[in-house]
Amino acid sequence: MYGAGDVRVETVADPTIQQPTDAIVRVVRACVCGSDLHPFHSMEQSDLGRPMGHELIGVVEEIGAAVGSLKKGDFVVAPFAFSDNTCAFCRDGFQTSCPHGGFYGSREVGGLQAEFARIPQADGSLVVVPDVDPGAADEKLLASLLTLSDVYLTGYHAAHMGRVGPGKVVTVIGDGAVGLSAVLAARQLGAEQIILMGRHRSRTDLGVEFGATEVVAERGEEGISRVMDLTRGEGSHVVLEAVGHMPAYEQAYGIVRPGGIISRVGVPQYEEAPIGFGSLFGKNATLTGGPAPVRAYMEPAIRQVLTGEIDPGRVFDRVVGIDEVPAGYAAMDAREALNVMVKM
Amino acid sequence: MYGAGDVRVETVADPTIQQPTDAIVRVVRACVCGSDLHPFHSMEQSDLGRPMGHELIGVVEEIGAAVGSLKKGDFVVAPFAFSDNTCAFCRDGFQTSCPHGGFYGSREVGGLQAEFARIPQADGSLVVVPDVDPGAADEKLLASLLTLSDVYLTGYHAAHMGRVGPGKVVTVIGDGAVGLSAVLAARQLGAEQIILMGRHRSRTDLGVEFGATEVVAERGEEGISRVMDLTRGEGSHVVLEAVGHMPAYEQAYGIVRPGGIISRVGVPQYEEAPIGFGSLFGKNATLTGGPAPVRAYMEPAIRQVLTGEIDPGRVFDRVVGIDEVPAGYAAMDAREALNVMVKM
Repeated sequence: MYGAGDVRVETVADPTIQQPTDAIVRVVRACVCGSDLHPFHSMEQSDLGRPMGHELIGVVEEIGAAVGSLKKGDFVVAPFAFSDNTCAFCRDGFQTSCPHGGFYGSREVGGLQAEFARIPQADGSLVVVPDVDPGAADEKLLASLLTLSDVYLTGYHAAHMGRVGPGKVVTVIGDGAVGLSAVLAARQLGAEQIILMGRHRSRTDLGVEFGATEVVAERGEEGISRVMDLTRGEGSHVVLEAVGHMPAYEQAYGIVRPGGIISRVGVPQYEEAPIGFGSLFGKNATLTGGPAPVRAYMEPAIRQVLTGEIDPGRVFDRVVGIDEVPAGYAAMDAREALNVMVKM
Repeated sequence: MYGAGDVRVETVADPTIQQPTDAIVRVVRACVCGSDLHPFHSMEQSDLGRPMGHELIGVVEEIGAAVGSLKKGDFVVAPFAFSDNTCAFCRDGFQTSCPHGGFYGSREVGGLQAEFARIPQADGSLVVVPDVDPGAADEKLLASLLTLSDVYLTGYHAAHMGRVGPGKVVTVIGDGAVGLSAVLAARQLGAEQIILMGRHRSRTDLGVEFGATEVVAERGEEGISRVMDLTRGEGSHVVLEAVGHMPAYEQAYGIVRPGGIISRVGVPQYEEAPIGFGSLFGKNATLTGGPAPVRAYMEPAIRQVLTGEIDPGRVFDRVVGIDEVPAGYAAMDAREALNVMVKM
């Protein structure tokens, strides 16, 4: 990406092993993320450009000398952040804070919307999908595995941090791919009632298939009233905020029940916000969430996808080849596509 | 209180039963709360004045027709907020959000720095202390029971909401009576390391007796560095914020470990504050806390006080008669006294 709206497909040198802990992966599927739309809207024009993408499933092509858990030919999922998976924070389950980890999309690390990718900290980052041949696998299975790289497990992280469980009333704010994933995760975790706030009918329809029990299309004060009505005036035990803009946060503290939890996974596009007596404190509301440590949830999620227990890949409603990636960005930006998969 | 610095002791009509759910209590001990100092600093002068106080232990004098769990002569603790203790929010353990409950210190409900008090929702609010004759009881026992009305159980609430437990590194910000209570509560809940941030030596000394393993007198960036050094650069699993001013909150997110919890019980003297990527979100920090539903924790705490397992009454370092209450405010304001008990 060279600036707002300016995505180009270019031929560059293949990545090579730089650290003995690296692996090189041949990308099978990548995708465009909702969060990629932030620079697509606002990035300053740049001569150097910025490599894009942070999600992939692929096949290990080469490993560094220190990599012990992988071999050439392994079919793997790459979490959207790399991490050593052995440090104190990783052991806590917060791999996105690993001091030896980091994020894709810099000049040093590269992006994953590519045919080949260098994965740092490969032992800690890549997770093998057992007994699947990506060349012969069902398209739906590949799509669902790809969501474990970010979107589904980001929704899952929201629900996990919000302590969703049986008997809980959960409201999901946002009908993007992460919001719909949060609906599916809340159902997995046993939520009793799942209210989805969103106004794009085709998306909320998928939300209902994923487990939403009610859809609220209204926003602002009107949306808050509707949710209060649907919860006997008590509010929502858990609010999963999958947007990142201030109005979504304001809705969240408007509908959270006393003692309830707001869990954010939409990257906040603000730094300061109300948290005093009138918003969070007065009703003992808890605010949680952050960049999802998807690595922490990976193995059980792979099993759920392989057994067909969950089908989060349904959020992908468009498939493009690598040359069509710029059109994929434009389609997501125009809301013509919910989530765009890139087939290499 | 008639305005900032203007506390008067006046003879008023005895309170009477107004609702069948009321009780009248003869006050044995009341106290001045750190939170009473906020209006002591800033209240606008008023002709009507405002009745003060929200903590007491006392003896039931009279009950309304609908009160079923109390009888004349019962020795009771009154939580600082009244509540029906039967509604959905009370059953959740968030009695401070009870729609039939409320707070003392209005013209309608009165204050508890008084010889007699009307307690609304008496069945839900008052908790009987079994087998204690307040006329013959040890002064230390009475002091500890009085802390259950607010200060100790507010510190406990901070620790409870912060999920303090064995193996946890806990930092308490603030060496006031609530902060010291939070230290004691964190020790009760099994914290491994308890760092107390405060710079009043006589207070932090009591904090050490309550269980603090280290004291950090520095503030701001220097205080943050000291705590990071004491936690191997990792930060604190739990931060209990018992001040309520912005610099304390800024310290809190500076020292909280990735995935950790900031639990606030100091009433925030701000509404907006940083919660975006650079403060909470980036490291998956959780923010929790609010007005303590002390009713939820009362029975086990009474047992712990009666058995001598905890001695939270040590926060009271001055006892005054009712005529000396204005001097008690002044002494707390000047930090000559940590917490002032009023003996009727």
